[in-house]
Amino acid sequence: MKTYKIALLPGDGIGRDVTDAAWSVLEKTAGSGGLSLEATRLTWSCDYYLENGSMMPADGIETLKSFDAILLGAVGWPRKVPDSVSLHGLLLPIRKAFEQYANIRPHRLLPGVQGPLRSDSFDILCIRENTEGEYSGAGGRVHQGTDNEVAIETAIFTRKGVERILRFGFEQARARRGKLASVTKSNAQKYSMVFWDEITRKLSAEYPDVEVTSYHIDAMAARMVMAPESLDVVVASNLFGDILTDLGAAIQGGLGFAASANINPDRSAPSMFEPVHGSAPDIAHLGIANPIAAIWSGAMMLEHLGEAAAAGRIMAAIETTTARGIGATPGKDKTEAITASVLSALD
Amino acid sequence: MKTYKIALLPGDGIGRDVTDAAWSVLEKTAGSGGLSLEATRLTWSCDYYLENGSMMPADGIETLKSFDAILLGAVGWPRKVPDSVSLHGLLLPIRKAFEQYANIRPHRLLPGVQGPLRSDSFDILCIRENTEGEYSGAGGRVHQGTDNEVAIETAIFTRKGVERILRFGFEQARARRGKLASVTKSNAQKYSMVFWDEITRKLSAEYPDVEVTSYHIDAMAARMVMAPESLDVVVASNLFGDILTDLGAAIQGGLGFAASANINPDRSAPSMFEPVHGSAPDIAHLGIANPIAAIWSGAMMLEHLGEAAAAGRIMAAIETTTARGIGATPGKDKTEAITASVLSALD
Ligand SMILES: CC(C)[C@H](C(=O)O)[C@@H](O)C(=O)O
Ligand SMILES: CC(C)[C@H](C(=O)O)[C@@H](O)C(=O)O
Repeated sequence: MKTYKIALLPGDGIGRDVTDAAWSVLEKTAGSGGLSLEATRLTWSCDYYLENGSMMPADGIETLKSFDAILLGAVGWPRKVPDSVSLHGLLLPIRKAFEQYANIRPHRLLPGVQGPLRSDSFDILCIRENTEGEYSGAGGRVHQGTDNEVAIETAIFTRKGVERILRFGFEQARARRGKLASVTKSNAQKYSMVFWDEITRKLSAEYPDVEVTSYHIDAMAARMVMAPESLDVVVASNLFGDILTDLGAAIQGGLGFAASANINPDRSAPSMFEPVHGSAPDIAHLGIANPIAAIWSGAMMLEHLGEAAAAGRIMAAIETTTARGIGATPGKDKTEAITASVLSALD
Repeated sequence: MKTYKIALLPGDGIGRDVTDAAWSVLEKTAGSGGLSLEATRLTWSCDYYLENGSMMPADGIETLKSFDAILLGAVGWPRKVPDSVSLHGLLLPIRKAFEQYANIRPHRLLPGVQGPLRSDSFDILCIRENTEGEYSGAGGRVHQGTDNEVAIETAIFTRKGVERILRFGFEQARARRGKLASVTKSNAQKYSMVFWDEITRKLSAEYPDVEVTSYHIDAMAARMVMAPESLDVVVASNLFGDILTDLGAAIQGGLGFAASANINPDRSAPSMFEPVHGSAPDIAHLGIANPIAAIWSGAMMLEHLGEAAAAGRIMAAIETTTARGIGATPGKDKTEAITASVLSALD
């Protein structure tokens, strides 16, 4: 029997609620599927910070290295610790240290879910660059506090970084419907985005079977709302992917349905799976967070570990649940009721 | 009788089609409204570039200075001239030279228009910073063409630049429903966006009557789709405003309905009015471009010139037209038919 070592990082707020839910579904799936999942729960979080002065131990990254995958809930609780500390102390370092350069986020409507659009037949896979670009953290401020103050923030794109995410996008498009949309803003950002466009064009020669189209970010945002059914795989920079995947979450009915995977495609380090939503302190531990995004992220984890059949069973159980109207309407059902329904659909 | 000198810059593609339409509406409105509009047509465009090697004459900015306002169609025709040349040679220099730092874009559904959202009761005014930030044009590339290549693009925010756009936002909110949404990404961009948030907080003390909320750009993109009716005035940086206003155009039914004003609030130089859409070379001069965005932009011009009554007459004529179903469905009616309907509604 195959055994996988999973690091559970519930984090903050509803991150804890939904991780518990996802874990119970994963355990049951494993039990009946001939695989074994071994969880190690790590309490790194804003509370941990308040006690220890850091978001994780000094050897946190070292510790995580030994796992097959990481299942994360959510990080952040601004009233306890500023986001600029908590996110830069836990979530972002993991993505970077483990070269989880491909952040994958599927956007489609689950059965029974009514989205905000009149259109309901779309199936988009967004791929976001996860390690560099606009979130490189380079910048500074001069003449601070004076009328003359200037703040700069520098986006840094490397050929290696851009090439590998685009290549990943081409591969995903090849495995799906063969269409890749590459998103930039090269008419206004003539260094970084022109560079990205050039690499897109260069790689396209290697993937003649993939139909690639370049869009500007503004046009793509509009397209996701006006003609989402025209899209297959969408690949974008760290910032643009961040924006488009929240928009993707919106059109799929809300953040309660938006799953994600932070993938290290070379498998040189563990990948991390997390719902797109944040820690939502205002509804933490009230038992009302929708666990579907977290459960779906768990399915993506099994898929990545090579357990496609088990992943498929979870997806089917999620779909049975929402088709029954359970967990399909934001705010209607309790975390426990939704989880129970997914668990029973697994039988 | 008050006379206004207007520079008409039809530019490229459908920019020409819609500028003609808008001008005929403006002329008729002026004629019956006791004001006089004097047009000077300037042919600066990609064609002009192909003949003269530049998008406008060396003294182009100087020439424009003497006008009361500029009415622009659209700039760009990538197959003739790369966008990085045409836009940086005409549209962007005007916005910057004339310190048109406030790009205003109204997003609401005209009567008879069906948008892509189920929700139809929103009325948002987006205000985009128009002169600095992520489109400063600062950056570079090293080790070009090698595996080791790095491209950087630097966003530059000045206190003066951020303060003036936010102040403009607060004023607009005060004149509307008193709600201001300020959009950043301070959890991931800790220099520029934290700076913007600080200035937002500082100014809010001066506007106790305005309810200001800070959102991250990803959350705001989702909100515009999931709860647009919760928004009043939205203020954002150059890039974020660019993205949100295309999204705004999408939820209002498409770019055919999206008007905009590039305002110099200090009135030290002319302001410029233009539809949000581009030059759309594929449908240029086929007589099928929707002129409503351009006509609406013309109304914004009159409003800015202090002719609110005349602007109101144009808006009423647009609304009568779309309420009749003319120009309300993208692609259905010809430019001429829509224009004729607006003209007759002016009677
Ligand atoms: C919390 C934040 C830093 C994070 C990001 O922007 O990466 C989040 O928005 C996401 O999309 O995962
Ligand atoms: C054409 C382009 C440079 C322009 C911009 O980004 O400013 C356009 O997208 C707009 O929104 O006016």
